[in-house]
Amino acid sequence: MSIRFAKRMDAMRPSSIREILKVTSRPDIISFAGGLPAPELFPVNEIRAACDRVIAESGPEALQYATTEGFPPLRALLAAEMAKRGIAAEADDILVTTGSQQGLDLIAKVLLDPGDCVLTENPTYLAAIQIFQSYEAAFAPVPTDDEGIIPEALPELVARHSPKFLYLIPNFQNPTGRTLSASRRKSLYEIAARIGLLVVEDDPYGKLRYTGTDIPSIKSLDAEGRNIYLSTISKTVAPGLRIGWVVAPKSVMGKLVTGKQASDLHSSSLDQRVLHRYFCDYDNAAHVEKIRRAYGERYGVMDAALKECMPDGFSWTHPEGGMFLWVSGPAGVDTLAMLDRAIERKVVFVPGRDFFPDGSGMSFMRLNFSNSSPDRIREGIARLAELCGEGKR
Amino acid sequence: MSIRFAKRMDAMRPSSIREILKVTSRPDIISFAGGLPAPELFPVNEIRAACDRVIAESGPEALQYATTEGFPPLRALLAAEMAKRGIAAEADDILVTTGSQQGLDLIAKVLLDPGDCVLTENPTYLAAIQIFQSYEAAFAPVPTDDEGIIPEALPELVARHSPKFLYLIPNFQNPTGRTLSASRRKSLYEIAARIGLLVVEDDPYGKLRYTGTDIPSIKSLDAEGRNIYLSTISKTVAPGLRIGWVVAPKSVMGKLVTGKQASDLHSSSLDQRVLHRYFCDYDNAAHVEKIRRAYGERYGVMDAALKECMPDGFSWTHPEGGMFLWVSGPAGVDTLAMLDRAIERKVVFVPGRDFFPDGSGMSFMRLNFSNSSPDRIREGIARLAELCGEGKR
Repeated sequence: MSIRFAKRMDAMRPSSIREILKVTSRPDIISFAGGLPAPELFPVNEIRAACDRVIAESGPEALQYATTEGFPPLRALLAAEMAKRGIAAEADDILVTTGSQQGLDLIAKVLLDPGDCVLTENPTYLAAIQIFQSYEAAFAPVPTDDEGIIPEALPELVARHSPKFLYLIPNFQNPTGRTLSASRRKSLYEIAARIGLLVVEDDPYGKLRYTGTDIPSIKSLDAEGRNIYLSTISKTVAPGLRIGWVVAPKSVMGKLVTGKQASDLHSSSLDQRVLHRYFCDYDNAAHVEKIRRAYGERYGVMDAALKECMPDGFSWTHPEGGMFLWVSGPAGVDTLAMLDRAIERKVVFVPGRDFFPDGSGMSFMRLNFSNSSPDRIREGIARLAELCGEGKR
Repeated sequence: MSIRFAKRMDAMRPSSIREILKVTSRPDIISFAGGLPAPELFPVNEIRAACDRVIAESGPEALQYATTEGFPPLRALLAAEMAKRGIAAEADDILVTTGSQQGLDLIAKVLLDPGDCVLTENPTYLAAIQIFQSYEAAFAPVPTDDEGIIPEALPELVARHSPKFLYLIPNFQNPTGRTLSASRRKSLYEIAARIGLLVVEDDPYGKLRYTGTDIPSIKSLDAEGRNIYLSTISKTVAPGLRIGWVVAPKSVMGKLVTGKQASDLHSSSLDQRVLHRYFCDYDNAAHVEKIRRAYGERYGVMDAALKECMPDGFSWTHPEGGMFLWVSGPAGVDTLAMLDRAIERKVVFVPGRDFFPDGSGMSFMRLNFSNSSPDRIREGIARLAELCGEGKR
């Protein structure tokens, strides 16, 4: 029997990251590939205690079906967290999702018809590309420089492509590590409001700033509630719980809830309650402080190792937070072609190409610094630099 | 700013169940509406111990990102469970999903383009209707009688509609409680194989048989691996963990994994490991036996109460398992119109209409018997019968 699949499956290119991740489970391989947080920093004992308390105090409720929107006390806590980030949101404006991956999927689900255009940074988060491809979207990259995307480019792009929305990661962007400057955020908000462009602001890394000062989110400028904001506990608590959230205007929220109801009914009741209990019983701000210090140190080690080892012609970004930096090779370097040799040397990275909706970007590579110890970072960069030196000859 | 939503959102009708469930949280209301398992039977202490052991023994792994396909030891256990159900499956043939709701969503995602036809029982599971609507599918109901759908009707329907698949719930169907007979399953499998019809067999309730003998699944006849089978732990362990699974042919599995990667990356690592640990450390078969006995008793109480109280002209099904029975009123009864008066009398049910893809079925109602104590079942049926008697006048 030959099975006829949906057209959207033709559009979804499998990610090379998944293939790379199969290799990275080998302990002899130093991986700068995945976007994994450091597991040795997870608040394991605290989650264990929270878990035990939740099941002891409200086991049957924690194991039963629940509302699609999310566990109400968790939604209230997340609204309070939004207030700390300068974003006005009530509990009802929060949708709890199965990771912020699902938040993005639901936004695409309620907004995108086949052929619809999405504006993105170029490069951008590769899983976002995959999600939008799964709705058969078209992409229009927005010109960018070291301060992020250039807002003044938006009106012409909007006039030409009538995009459904602009998707961007203003803080410590994936893959580049770049941050959109405060003045650009202000211009972007004003221009988007003027031309009626919906902005989808993805903020998984904003709390992971290890140097410099926080910049208010675009959503915090949005007094009229026009933009959509996503975040997650995957980088600040633990990704295995699969909890993210979306803050959306009321008109969008109703659709997202209908969409989520069809997608998975609701996110794990147990995980939502455990997270809520953990937030109530422990000081997560102090925990995040620990992560920030560790990642800042690891970034510093990676930056220093790159400076010491990398051959001429290679440059890289200097992010003030997050988990990634972005290496740019000289013309002619093909990082995808380098990957097999890198695996032989027992070091891996993600080739740049996957992050460009148009498939360009062959001379770039993304390096993750959050998930390796300083010693392994030094050793891994030495191996990588040797390979880059050979590639040049 | 006016937001243009995707076309699929027009097709998704919000479920009246969600609105009903808002009322059912009131303790004075006796609810036969939701499809909720009995929370007083959840294995709370066992899950608590499993949870604690998982976090103590492998906390960092349980809190980290994981593979899309699912926790490998859980997949192996689910494959062994499949073998017990007569279904040949390796661990690699199992995809762990965020509830079987997500399994259905992923099947629709990889198979359905707008306008594609799905064959269904009539009536059928309302959330399945919602999922298929979210992919802008068309529906063609298959004629049914008390033994379930009539396989001989399939060739003509397939010739006329070229459906992507047939969706059905052979065991204790939702909403009717009916079971597809063994001989029908055999004919259905043979006819589907002959005419190249993909069968999607949803089996959430199969383990909940309280009388009669088990009937082999359609998938167990499928030596060539042509059909797709879904199940869940929502009714046999706990729905709050949001764990279901799909058994699919290899060609479909790869697509489902790509689809799931875009949908939510993976299901909760913690919940998957807790479930695995629970299955290893405890006797879930004995637990299911307890549920079966309790639900069988509750069904008996509801059936007896209906016999005693319901006015002439009402009949109902006599399921041998599961969680629902299906009441059929005399011509002219409109169960949706009755609902407001039912809420005034503090009893609720689900009107039949939501279960018919074509919106027919106004004289039916679905009653759940798993989530009320025998006393509340007697009282609730008395209230409902009084209302039905008035409706007849």
